[in-house]
Amino acid sequence: MGTVTRTARGGPPRQDRSRATRERLLEAAVTCVAEHGWTRSTVAVVAERAGVSRGAAQHHFPTREDLFTAAVAYMAEERSAALRALFPGPPPGRHAVVAALADLYTGPLFRAALQLWVVASQEETLREDVVALEARVGRETHRIAVALLDADEARPGARETVQGLLDMCRGLGLADLLTDDGPRRERVVRQWATLVEVALGETRPGASGG
Amino acid sequence: MGTVTRTARGGPPRQDRSRATRERLLEAAVTCVAEHGWTRSTVAVVAERAGVSRGAAQHHFPTREDLFTAAVAYMAEERSAALRALFPGPPPGRHAVVAALADLYTGPLFRAALQLWVVASQEETLREDVVALEARVGRETHRIAVALLDADEARPGARETVQGLLDMCRGLGLADLLTDDGPRRERVVRQWATLVEVALGETRPGASGG
Repeated sequence: MGTVTRTARGGPPRQDRSRATRERLLEAAVTCVAEHGWTRSTVAVVAERAGVSRGAAQHHFPTREDLFTAAVAYMAEERSAALRALFPGPPPGRHAVVAALADLYTGPLFRAALQLWVVASQEETLREDVVALEARVGRETHRIAVALLDADEARPGARETVQGLLDMCRGLGLADLLTDDGPRRERVVRQWATLVEVALGETRPGASGG
Repeated sequence: MGTVTRTARGGPPRQDRSRATRERLLEAAVTCVAEHGWTRSTVAVVAERAGVSRGAAQHHFPTREDLFTAAVAYMAEERSAALRALFPGPPPGRHAVVAALADLYTGPLFRAALQLWVVASQEETLREDVVALEARVGRETHRIAVALLDADEARPGARETVQGLLDMCRGLGLADLLTDDGPRRERVVRQWATLVEVALGETRPGASGG
């Protein structure tokens, strides 16, 4: 265990290399689950994908459960980061925000999350972690969407408008799982963005571009 | 194989009994997938659940693939039937229709379908059948929803409003997979039923109750 990092000379300090290896394994775990599903994503498959020896993988994650519990947390963090990174500057108009949200839910992070939700609905060992992390990601997603859309939550129905929009984006991600749903999705997103616009009312001066 | 049905005397004719056994196996396959996921739903588990001997199960479905290909078709048919049975008489107001559609997507048929979609996204043997059947069920669902909501598809955006609504229902089903999402769902459904109402405009006389 860890002999590779102990014997290596020069390069980044051992702690940094160890952290990089851990991150490579977590990234590979997410990719493997998104591409091959849960059952085929063993520690050996993930280690090979990450270009890490099986021994080094087991040093970081002694059991498959350790690896995937960490991968679930990593994925939740990545989904939050992807959301925060959507519009680092002032948000564009609401139509662009709705389109960007829909895009997020058809990407690889959502595909991996979907695989894990379905597995977690059957596997007690994963379920508790996944439920707790989903609650956190869900709250953060809602908060960011409210801000990007400049929704005034004091307005009746505004909160539920945003929630239903995010549910629709999840449904669009699901529809894209088996077939490329791009052209249909674009038309649906355009119409729903219009409905969201009507429901949320005028944007406030200096906030979203409207 | 088939000795049970050949030696039995009295009772319903052999063909009917064979059909009933087949149906019991398909129902059990759907329930097993919804409750225990794909991996654990073997032919043996399904046969036990159906109260059918393993030999009789293999007589009807020689391989696991045969069983689940048939189960996928059966489930698609059941989903269509559930949809058609929602409102056999004149449809109620649109709010009630939206609520009923959302309920469909949180039931056991949707849970089983979700498990299969995720598996089919990884398993080539299932994928083709599932994609073809989903396309058919999707078209029928859309057609029935349009009729129940009395949507005039000539009206700009009406078609996409209904499509987005069905995507939202799928997303609500997904949100219900790991935790009971009932109270939140009710509020979201109420608000989006109102937005759908606005988008679709007046109902036509003699059609939906409005």
